[in-house]
Amino acid sequence: MSELDVWSIDARTGEKVEAVASTATDAEVDASASRAAEVAPSLVAAGLAGRARLLRAMADEIEKDGDAIVAAADRESALGQVRLRGELARSAYQLRLFGEVLEDGGYLELTIDHPDPNAVPAPRPDLRRMLVPVGPVGVFSASNFPLAFSVPGGDTASAIAAGCPVVVKAHSGHPYTSELSATALRRAAASVAVPEDVVQLVHGRKAGTRLVVHPAIQAVGFTGSVGGGRALYDLATSRPQPIPFYGELGSINPFVVTPEAAAQRAESIASGLAGSFTLGIGQFCTKPGLVFVPAGADGQRLIDALAEAAGQIAGGPMLTPSIREGFLTGAAERVALPGVRAVLSASGQISPHVLVASASALDDVLLEECFGPLVVVVEYGDEGELFAALDRVPGSLTATVHSGDSEGASGSFADRVAQRLTGIAGRILFNGYPTGVAVTWAQQHGGPWPATTFPHHTSVGTTAIRRFLRPVAYQDAPDALLPAELREDNPLGLPRRVDGRYQLHG
Amino acid sequence: MSELDVWSIDARTGEKVEAVASTATDAEVDASASRAAEVAPSLVAAGLAGRARLLRAMADEIEKDGDAIVAAADRESALGQVRLRGELARSAYQLRLFGEVLEDGGYLELTIDHPDPNAVPAPRPDLRRMLVPVGPVGVFSASNFPLAFSVPGGDTASAIAAGCPVVVKAHSGHPYTSELSATALRRAAASVAVPEDVVQLVHGRKAGTRLVVHPAIQAVGFTGSVGGGRALYDLATSRPQPIPFYGELGSINPFVVTPEAAAQRAESIASGLAGSFTLGIGQFCTKPGLVFVPAGADGQRLIDALAEAAGQIAGGPMLTPSIREGFLTGAAERVALPGVRAVLSASGQISPHVLVASASALDDVLLEECFGPLVVVVEYGDEGELFAALDRVPGSLTATVHSGDSEGASGSFADRVAQRLTGIAGRILFNGYPTGVAVTWAQQHGGPWPATTFPHHTSVGTTAIRRFLRPVAYQDAPDALLPAELREDNPLGLPRRVDGRYQLHG
Repeated sequence: MSELDVWSIDARTGEKVEAVASTATDAEVDASASRAAEVAPSLVAAGLAGRARLLRAMADEIEKDGDAIVAAADRESALGQVRLRGELARSAYQLRLFGEVLEDGGYLELTIDHPDPNAVPAPRPDLRRMLVPVGPVGVFSASNFPLAFSVPGGDTASAIAAGCPVVVKAHSGHPYTSELSATALRRAAASVAVPEDVVQLVHGRKAGTRLVVHPAIQAVGFTGSVGGGRALYDLATSRPQPIPFYGELGSINPFVVTPEAAAQRAESIASGLAGSFTLGIGQFCTKPGLVFVPAGADGQRLIDALAEAAGQIAGGPMLTPSIREGFLTGAAERVALPGVRAVLSASGQISPHVLVASASALDDVLLEECFGPLVVVVEYGDEGELFAALDRVPGSLTATVHSGDSEGASGSFADRVAQRLTGIAGRILFNGYPTGVAVTWAQQHGGPWPATTFPHHTSVGTTAIRRFLRPVAYQDAPDALLPAELREDNPLGLPRRVDGRYQLHG
Repeated sequence: MSELDVWSIDARTGEKVEAVASTATDAEVDASASRAAEVAPSLVAAGLAGRARLLRAMADEIEKDGDAIVAAADRESALGQVRLRGELARSAYQLRLFGEVLEDGGYLELTIDHPDPNAVPAPRPDLRRMLVPVGPVGVFSASNFPLAFSVPGGDTASAIAAGCPVVVKAHSGHPYTSELSATALRRAAASVAVPEDVVQLVHGRKAGTRLVVHPAIQAVGFTGSVGGGRALYDLATSRPQPIPFYGELGSINPFVVTPEAAAQRAESIASGLAGSFTLGIGQFCTKPGLVFVPAGADGQRLIDALAEAAGQIAGGPMLTPSIREGFLTGAAERVALPGVRAVLSASGQISPHVLVASASALDDVLLEECFGPLVVVVEYGDEGELFAALDRVPGSLTATVHSGDSEGASGSFADRVAQRLTGIAGRILFNGYPTGVAVTWAQQHGGPWPATTFPHHTSVGTTAIRRFLRPVAYQDAPDALLPAELREDNPLGLPRRVDGRYQLHG
């Protein structure tokens, strides 16, 4: 057995607590990927009902081990027990929700066209289409969500639901949490007679790159930095057989306050913003990083109130030493920019920072995400100046508009802003705060580059499953040779589009 | 005005008939891409009904100009009036079918989750998700379908339906056909008060690469060779902002005859195969290129009948001089391979070729597509040998199994073959021939690499629209600021998933 060389580090003290795992060798990564391909048919054979049972067992098992998992995650991330209890509940909910997705069956996009010898422009055969799993999926855990975007997170849940085994590359920030979570998920598989290797775990940076280029891996889910994500994206797309790399990278999350909104409730918006940009020490991918306020008295009131509210919020340890280092460097760089006014900052401290700049002199650096409790407030003169600045904002996961009481009608200033923001982001919020991503049917967590590598998809919500599926059409198949989902008598009672018309039940 | 330097060439004589267009300069390509971005809002503003009207007008206009378009296409491709009349009808049908897709509205994936302050694990906001157009799309026309996979083809139809303007890179083999088609489509746009620049045309190889890297272009549709497609895919994915490149490249289209099928109807299968692999001088992306037959007397009967039937089919001019050259070289290379028996061939001739090899000594070159009227028949000894050979077959658009009368039950030899083929291809045919791709709701024209760059999608059938859409979720939006598709009272009467349940009508 390999030496234990992967250390669990206390995020609050920086101390190495214990060695909990071994860095995977190339041979071990290869074996994991191959093994994932071997067990893939078992997930298909389990069928919709079997995979729903598996997902629920996974939820049960991580809850059973909840105390230990949360304790490990708190030690490794310093995110606190309350937040991590919530994250565990969210992860379990997410696994069970995908069970509902399977029972609903709509995700299969079942489509049947009966043959028509008289069809124009040409006779038509019997065609039956469904989505099938793509095969083994590589998953890269996030630093900032040791559960919900890591081993038992949305990528794993949606891939398993689709019928794809996963090989998870553990994040170096929380290896012990990853080990405990994987153990629970694998035990769940065994409990419902599915091979436990439908979930496998590897440690080490080189293991991650090896995983992305292994021929058995057919898609990758990733949450992390722009630099790391781009490097892996380039690897995935330059393989002899390129594969889709679904990466969530960086997001500045623009937030626009209209003049009327600022006039009516500058203080209340400031208070909400202060809570949102400092939540989890600013370590949320949906943190509002760039806030546009009208230049003038109302905007100034908002800035003053924001600095005051944020000034009362304590800092704290960040997830890892390198994230801490990155924040301090990024904050110092921004504070030093010409034209930037630091209304709240503390050199060399992990504490809330509020910087102010003018839309007419907006440095490119301010348009880049600064991971941590820092917000840039941009003062705009008029709609033209605002829209010119918005045109420079990179693709984001979210974009928010705060509007005044009279702006609820089509064609209002707020409406024009919202329409403009639709081109930038995957989720448009009205009069809210973007941190917090509900796991629901309608959720969209994705957006134009660099928010994600592929804005056509989401990593949160039920449609995340679509990333790991490909369509297959059967032409003139004997009924008995069709998958049950496509048989004429619809034995599973699934919704299907038949001859162009959607039918809710068989 | 630039000099006319793009020549229309008579495919039958190789003669330059007339200069019909100008090679686009870099500045012209840039202007086209920027112009596409400018007119994009007009397609969104047209709405579902307006775009449906536009697509129908496009169908009408290409039909109105049908005689001229077909005459040009015949001269430039030598595919014959009958085939090209059919292709025109198919293209018009395809445009109109996407009109139905818009009126159906299911493609929007409308999803509404009402707010729930008591939701577990966390309170839930109002979330409403729909698909929106990604923006301007670059389309690369195919050599072998001067209409249905070119200017008025499936990529254009699905992109316009999605709400995305297209800039089409004309294929050098049929520039005049492309010009006539684009003129008809642009006239259609003008007739329904949509800017004619929602369809633009550029000529020249360099124009194509320029188009793929232009920042305004947000997705690319491509049909062509593995080499050309890979080069453009690499360009698209290495952009500062990578974009999806939906390429259909090369496909060998495996075709398996079970022992029972060979015993029962070797001659009939041979006859169907002969017609299929020589259709359009073998210039179909779905041409069956690799046929597995049982070793022994029945397989030999099939081979003999295939050689005889194919030997009675005339050759003819190919699409372009370079395609002709490629076929002659490819055929000669394969005929010369050790272990290959050429039962029908003619050195230096464009005529049907039937080559035979053993599964136990299958050269890698035989697994590559040879574009033109050539089929490789592989003799297999038993199921193990067949499956070992199938494991080496590259991803394909189609895969076919021919089974015997007793093989219609689950678990039969034919069933095991079909299940294996599902891992290789996007369309699985039973007892049929893969050439001919019906344009329907259930069609899937795509498959694992190198058949396509992205097997999660299709380039034929109604779901081709999905390639050019990305989801956006609106959170807590005032009803009046929502797109009509998502308003609470469902003014457009569209199908939507509300609180997890699919509802057919508002």
